[in-house]
Amino acid sequence: MGKHWDTGRTEAFSDGVFAIAITLLVLDIRVPVSEFRDLWSGIAHAWPAYLGYVTSFLTIGGIWLAHHTAFRRLRFANARVMQVNLALLMAVGFLPFPTRLMAEAIRDVDAERAAVIFYGGSLLVISLLLAALWATAARPRRLFQPEVTQQEIDALRRASRPNVGFYAGVTALAILAPRVAAFGYLLIAVAAVLRARGDE
Amino acid sequence: MGKHWDTGRTEAFSDGVFAIAITLLVLDIRVPVSEFRDLWSGIAHAWPAYLGYVTSFLTIGGIWLAHHTAFRRLRFANARVMQVNLALLMAVGFLPFPTRLMAEAIRDVDAERAAVIFYGGSLLVISLLLAALWATAARPRRLFQPEVTQQEIDALRRASRPNVGFYAGVTALAILAPRVAAFGYLLIAVAAVLRARGDE
Amino acid sequence: MGKHWDTGRTEAFSDGVFAIAITLLVLDIRVPVSEFRDLWSGIAHAWPAYLGYVTSFLTIGGIWLAHHTAFRRLRFANARVMQVNLALLMAVGFLPFPTRLMAEAIRDVDAERAAVIFYGGSLLVISLLLAALWATAARPRRLFQPEVTQQEIDALRRASRPNVGFYAGVTALAILAPRVAAFGYLLIAVAAVLRARGDE
Amino acid sequence: MGKHWDTGRTEAFSDGVFAIAITLLVLDIRVPVSEFRDLWSGIAHAWPAYLGYVTSFLTIGGIWLAHHTAFRRLRFANARVMQVNLALLMAVGFLPFPTRLMAEAIRDVDAERAAVIFYGGSLLVISLLLAALWATAARPRRLFQPEVTQQEIDALRRASRPNVGFYAGVTALAILAPRVAAFGYLLIAVAAVLRARGDE
Repeated sequence: MGKHWDTGRTEAFSDGVFAIAITLLVLDIRVPVSEFRDLWSGIAHAWPAYLGYVTSFLTIGGIWLAHHTAFRRLRFANARVMQVNLALLMAVGFLPFPTRLMAEAIRDVDAERAAVIFYGGSLLVISLLLAALWATAARPRRLFQPEVTQQEIDALRRASRPNVGFYAGVTALAILAPRVAAFGYLLIAVAAVLRARGDE
Repeated sequence: MGKHWDTGRTEAFSDGVFAIAITLLVLDIRVPVSEFRDLWSGIAHAWPAYLGYVTSFLTIGGIWLAHHTAFRRLRFANARVMQVNLALLMAVGFLPFPTRLMAEAIRDVDAERAAVIFYGGSLLVISLLLAALWATAARPRRLFQPEVTQQEIDALRRASRPNVGFYAGVTALAILAPRVAAFGYLLIAVAAVLRARGDE
Repeated sequence: MGKHWDTGRTEAFSDGVFAIAITLLVLDIRVPVSEFRDLWSGIAHAWPAYLGYVTSFLTIGGIWLAHHTAFRRLRFANARVMQVNLALLMAVGFLPFPTRLMAEAIRDVDAERAAVIFYGGSLLVISLLLAALWATAARPRRLFQPEVTQQEIDALRRASRPNVGFYAGVTALAILAPRVAAFGYLLIAVAAVLRARGDE
Repeated sequence: MGKHWDTGRTEAFSDGVFAIAITLLVLDIRVPVSEFRDLWSGIAHAWPAYLGYVTSFLTIGGIWLAHHTAFRRLRFANARVMQVNLALLMAVGFLPFPTRLMAEAIRDVDAERAAVIFYGGSLLVISLLLAALWATAARPRRLFQPEVTQQEIDALRRASRPNVGFYAGVTALAILAPRVAAFGYLLIAVAAVLRARGDE
């Protein structure tokens, strides 16, 4: 039967990485002391940091929901699922870096475009890895709980794919209109949270 | 029956976010090297940072107790509970930012008022989301464990509401007396921890 | 019977705070770029940061072992145990601040004494809260698992006390010889880890 | 029978430390504002930080897999296993420091060699502690689940050893060719993830 792993500890470890990546995002929100003279406008001026926080938080939240949905249906994981999962966690744990970069660069004419495309590229890689996680898990049917039907697996796999297209599309848009694209990533994240499927 | 989610992993993920948000608060407590000549007064001088740490720690601790109280009584969560919970986590994960801002600005005549009101506004949003979590969970009775009575649900919902009023009141007070209000938030947090209800 | 709480989620939340406080300590270890010309001596020169890291890591590790030992024996927690536990977590979550201060100040003639005493005072408060956690849990016998004997409870309570005396003593020593005391805290932490009792 | 500990909470605590150490690594990846004029080359220029992130992430990921493999087979832990585990967590929690140092120093002729050797030495200590964890657990056979055979224990112990040799070898190579060695650590980490054994 080959190597296999219990899913409980894998879910706990993945949740730890998701929870920390999501929470570290706040460390990059700052109002410099030089703006204390008019603090309300200083607080308002930090809007790119809030946009980055909310977008990345909801993106990771949506990934967590999708991860939950997938692992709930597994009886155990094989070596390949563990490896793809580790790659996914590595990409999610990296997200605070492009988030910070986008928040810092969005008001800089020279840097804005590159930062938004880089952020979108990171989200695209994450969505590809999430689709790969499903594809890897769905290959050997015996990884799934016996009550999970083939139709359900196929439906869930298909549901994991559209985000790949959305991220590719909005990142292409970022070449023309970086700021519009930055809000586009937020919309994709909100939609992913709203579309999330439960345990059954 | 619609989508639903197991609560175990949701509790674990939420606890991760609470535990990290609560622990990151310490990163913002610093004594500058310039105060090393008289370190005791440098340590004393950092009191706004301690006030922010203790207030936000106890606030998040109280939210954790209330969250624990609510989720213990659920058999499973539906999509809407998951979404409100994610919004609550996003607001709690944001709290280190206004905490730091209040600790930095409290000795600055220009910035003090805005910082304390902004902090109070963040706490108000968190308390509203906690009340919304109860309201969302209480709508479809079947989310609750069968042994939980309607009276108990109603009592717990009512118990989640006063903080909304307290935070609105103290934040209004912050317009006149920001420092007094800063200590008011501490009192609300202490009271929330002392009033917390258990699993039964 | 009054309010009570399930211990499982409390252990998980406490472990989260311990694990994060223990891991954040590394953020304060740095070698400035100005010491890159002779990096080996720059690495050696950072010894106070390593001393702080190891001492605080082992201290928190010992607290985690003691916490584990206590909660394993509880059937459930009451409101007072939850409150003392929250106070303990608040003190442990604070520890990275005095740790960093001691590491920065230990080579500064003016600041060294105050920093080491402040660090020792923080450890003293933590050990008092750990003893208080035992005293609070041991008051109402019915909190314990039925198979736990009164002798065992008494033995464990007594075992939690010596550290209070050790920390008071070494902190007094810090007035005369701060650097010696800094190593004294390390010895207490090592001894606490070696003396830790298991689940039975 | 001596003291013993339940493994469940130890796994959860260890996972917390692994998850946080792995996620903190991202805080050290930065592009300075001075490189915003040509952000793409600024992003490319940060490659040593990415190399450090990926290497340390995969190293800790491989340790987590090995840790999972070991603890799954234990019925409970004794005091010595808990102590070696705590030492392993202390070394893993330290890794973000040498990772950052290597990423900062790799382009500095004076510092590069020392930083890469220091990083390799840290990995060597971690691999020694992982081998020590197996040796400690394997001594008293009764720690293992009854269905685990002596052959399996011996096979797993042997499997934990080669990394010690690899890290010693690549660190020796770092004296001659630090940059080559930096990529060597990445190869060892990738191999450890690919070779990881499952629960059975």
